Amino acid sequence: MERAEDIAAEAAEFLELYHGERRLPGLAARLAEAREEIALTGSYRHTRDELVYGAKVAWRQSVRCVGRIRWAGLKVRDRRHVTTVAGIAQELAAHLAAGDNGGRIQSVVTVFAPDRPGVGPRARIWNDQLIRYCGHRRDDGSVLGDPAQVGMTEAARRLGWRPPPVPGRFDLLPWVIETAQEQPTVVSVPRELVREVALSHPEHPWFADLMLRWHALPVISNMRLRIGGVDYSCAPFNGHYLGDEIGTRNMGDRDRYDQLRVVAAGLGLDTSREDTLWREHAVLVINQAVLHSFKLAGVRVSDPHTESELFMKFCAQEERAGRPVHGDWSWLNGSVGWAALHAVHHRYYDTAVPNPNIWPTDRVYDPSGVVKTTLRERHDTARVQED
Amino acid sequence: MERAEDIAAEAAEFLELYHGERRLPGLAARLAEAREEIALTGSYRHTRDELVYGAKVAWRQSVRCVGRIRWAGLKVRDRRHVTTVAGIAQELAAHLAAGDNGGRIQSVVTVFAPDRPGVGPRARIWNDQLIRYCGHRRDDGSVLGDPAQVGMTEAARRLGWRPPPVPGRFDLLPWVIETAQEQPTVVSVPRELVREVALSHPEHPWFADLMLRWHALPVISNMRLRIGGVDYSCAPFNGHYLGDEIGTRNMGDRDRYDQLRVVAAGLGLDTSREDTLWREHAVLVINQAVLHSFKLAGVRVSDPHTESELFMKFCAQEERAGRPVHGDWSWLNGSVGWAALHAVHHRYYDTAVPNPNIWPTDRVYDPSGVVKTTLRERHDTARVQED
Repeated sequence: MERAEDIAAEAAEFLELYHGERRLPGLAARLAEAREEIALTGSYRHTRDELVYGAKVAWRQSVRCVGRIRWAGLKVRDRRHVTTVAGIAQELAAHLAAGDNGGRIQSVVTVFAPDRPGVGPRARIWNDQLIRYCGHRRDDGSVLGDPAQVGMTEAARRLGWRPPPVPGRFDLLPWVIETAQEQPTVVSVPRELVREVALSHPEHPWFADLMLRWHALPVISNMRLRIGGVDYSCAPFNGHYLGDEIGTRNMGDRDRYDQLRVVAAGLGLDTSREDTLWREHAVLVINQAVLHSFKLAGVRVSDPHTESELFMKFCAQEERAGRPVHGDWSWLNGSVGWAALHAVHHRYYDTAVPNPNIWPTDRVYDPSGVVKTTLRERHDTARVQED
Repeated sequence: MERAEDIAAEAAEFLELYHGERRLPGLAARLAEAREEIALTGSYRHTRDELVYGAKVAWRQSVRCVGRIRWAGLKVRDRRHVTTVAGIAQELAAHLAAGDNGGRIQSVVTVFAPDRPGVGPRARIWNDQLIRYCGHRRDDGSVLGDPAQVGMTEAARRLGWRPPPVPGRFDLLPWVIETAQEQPTVVSVPRELVREVALSHPEHPWFADLMLRWHALPVISNMRLRIGGVDYSCAPFNGHYLGDEIGTRNMGDRDRYDQLRVVAAGLGLDTSREDTLWREHAVLVINQAVLHSFKLAGVRVSDPHTESELFMKFCAQEERAGRPVHGDWSWLNGSVGWAALHAVHHRYYDTAVPNPNIWPTDRVYDPSGVVKTTLRERHDTARVQED
């Protein structure tokens, strides 16, 4: 368990940053108030404005994100008062609509109640993203759909969810939501709120026949937002897609949709030897299809050149503001695919990770879809110990 | 100046590694001998076998190289007794022949006399590689040839070298060699020892009309080999080329031959927008041309897939041997171009740099080709101070 003095120190660091950057008065009083509240309760409650600014700074400091120049434009939905599964599901639907924004994707975070100090999250979304496709394990061991989602698909089934009678490659996964009071519950995703883009290529008509598609909105739902010593484990957020994430990672990776060989066949490439660079050729064509199709559908998407230039601008901005740029090279470059072509190449970053930030969390379920401890059990145990 | 005790400690560390890995007896006696020699002279002399093994380990530990699986096969040419400009030039020519090996490129290092403790190199090659093309600065500020070599081209001119009467894009730079006794001297590269490959593409006949070419052998000549506390600043070494180094870096980079737009024009690509990914398309085609042309010419070259698989094998080997793999992520991935496609992606390395290793050195000449202090001046000053 974190010590009250450590939380107080991190709270002070954040409140100083917040008052400093915003040039707000009243720091001393606010510090005293937070310190007292932490001493009494083990934590403290952010004002709405602190939460909004803290979430923005967490994005600004998130080491793996190349799109941080937009940090100040983050839309923060303060939903700390929403604590039931039904209420959370409704807010997730509202998040999809706000993020989608008619295709002009808007960066949004929805923040639910903070974790209970020393106990853990008050609410948890099992999905790693709010929109993902099922991975159906077939009897022969192969996977139909997204292999990365086999465990989550299994977890939903164990909770009683039934996959479509005719399973497909792009079946939407349901949400699994649990709270300190309620068991893990399966909730269908409101299909009408999920915008998808069918992939076609400007020069290869056969590409559309591959029947590939992807969703427009990446909403990460399994990370912990931490602001000034307070954890918000239930705080899904989205930006918009970088074309590479879909074209290279989701479609190209061998342990995802693994489409390079299929596309190479469409292109008539010689795949008998690596040095024809057929993999690179196939991945280029898929990436072109992604950018083309999203544009055609009027959905915001970034290409690697534009994005790496914006990231360089962000670095310059931060340095002008006297702030170091924290970064994880492997993600910053990896996410723009053809590392060698882009500006982020061969630049070094401060690899420390400051707070506020967004942190990975452990997966809730094991590979076969089983959860070890529900939130309800965890909170009940804590309550018994307190009595 | 390095302290004798630091040199002795590094010497001991190396001699222990050498005796340990080779399972050789006599460590205690050798340590005592080296310690005494360092106390008397400030350094010590490696046996031939120590030098050979130390150079191999330096390669094994060089953090930026993806081809390290071949470390034990390095051919080490002990030329510590060669100390004149003429002798060095002759050995560099012999190095070219040994490395070229009829096109079946062999990894070679030629080690000249170690640095004088507290003073510096006894011999210095100004070129960053033994084979490079001139960068001729035109009156309008533009560059004909390799823009990275404008300074070196200028440096050679200041020493009296005359560029070809009709300058071209691929004129061989001469060597500039200096020693503790001799002034910087221009030496022509023996042209008959320089294998070059004209670039053509298996599917685009027009590619050959671009008249692009590259040399077969990359011999790095401006790095300092350090083994057990001894610096060898004059120790040129070569491996063979990774296709990307030529296709992506040398041909593609905006501050090098900058051929993406030319190739895109040949392909008829739409270069008015970044999201057509025309840069990626052009760089793919150049890389295909490089691999194809080298293969056609019977010159050893690596493609990124094969090389990243070999590097993964190297990592496994090292871990089995109980040795950490030291690495610089940005180079390991950067050098294989399409980072996202390859195995090295998202693996982390020990970023410490152990010795023995190969270290960068400062450039001898300034951007306009002027040298600040010659070796002769430096050694003479040291001698005067000793008197």
